[in-house]
Amino acid sequence: MPKTLPPSHADLLDLPVSAHLGTVRPDGAPQVSEMWFVWDGEVVRFTHTNNRQKFKNFAHEPRVSFSIADPDDPYRFLEVRGVVESIEPDPNADFYVSLQERYGFSIGRGDAPVRVVVTVRPTGYIAVSGGMTQAEQAAAKG
Amino acid sequence: MPKTLPPSHADLLDLPVSAHLGTVRPDGAPQVSEMWFVWDGEVVRFTHTNNRQKFKNFAHEPRVSFSIADPDDPYRFLEVRGVVESIEPDPNADFYVSLQERYGFSIGRGDAPVRVVVTVRPTGYIAVSGGMTQAEQAAAKG
Repeated sequence: MPKTLPPSHADLLDLPVSAHLGTVRPDGAPQVSEMWFVWDGEVVRFTHTNNRQKFKNFAHEPRVSFSIADPDDPYRFLEVRGVVESIEPDPNADFYVSLQERYGFSIGRGDAPVRVVVTVRPTGYIAVSGGMTQAEQAAAKG
Repeated sequence: MPKTLPPSHADLLDLPVSAHLGTVRPDGAPQVSEMWFVWDGEVVRFTHTNNRQKFKNFAHEPRVSFSIADPDDPYRFLEVRGVVESIEPDPNADFYVSLQERYGFSIGRGDAPVRVVVTVRPTGYIAVSGGMTQAEQAAAKG
């Protein structure tokens, strides 16, 4: 698994599209949720609240994974695996509002008291083009 | 968690959009992959090959979860949790071709020898509208 972001798929981390975030529940079963995110070139940040199941999942299993689909190409997507590095309060919901702006929304700071910023540091990237990973493409070429 | 499909979100299982399938790897970390699917009202079927990591994950942990986003509403999505009920050969890739047709593609039967049909029986549904689950909406209404 490549440990650096493949340049061919870097654009997907810049688009305001949803990430489908996979976490593992305390009972060992997976959970997948649609999430907003922003990427700064080193870490990915998600807005979340500290009163939902995913928050408990992070404490149980800090390893996460998320996929981002190219909205224009159903055979192209990027999976990012990583580890939750920190969960910090977002008391004024400033980060939440910045994500709203990134995604073209304006819904306010309603649940600011429970808002948190979840920072994930990637540990690996799976880039899929034409329905195949880079390793599969290399194998197909022989 | 509701055990039946909420009528408000049933349309999302009929759309030819991608499912983001979460599985758990043998080392306990989650994995998320974009997948084609079809729903028959009782079970969800995915096309897959028996030589990829996810195939090993199913054997290790048959519980899976996938999310489907409404392409027209970033606050509306459906998470389906379930269990892999069967994995059967698709020797002529007939099922694979039927999914290609569902998604508007025609790419042939290339890897028919390794193609399988993965059947998942849902055990629960999380329907999100306006960014909140049904339980959260009920709580917000007081």
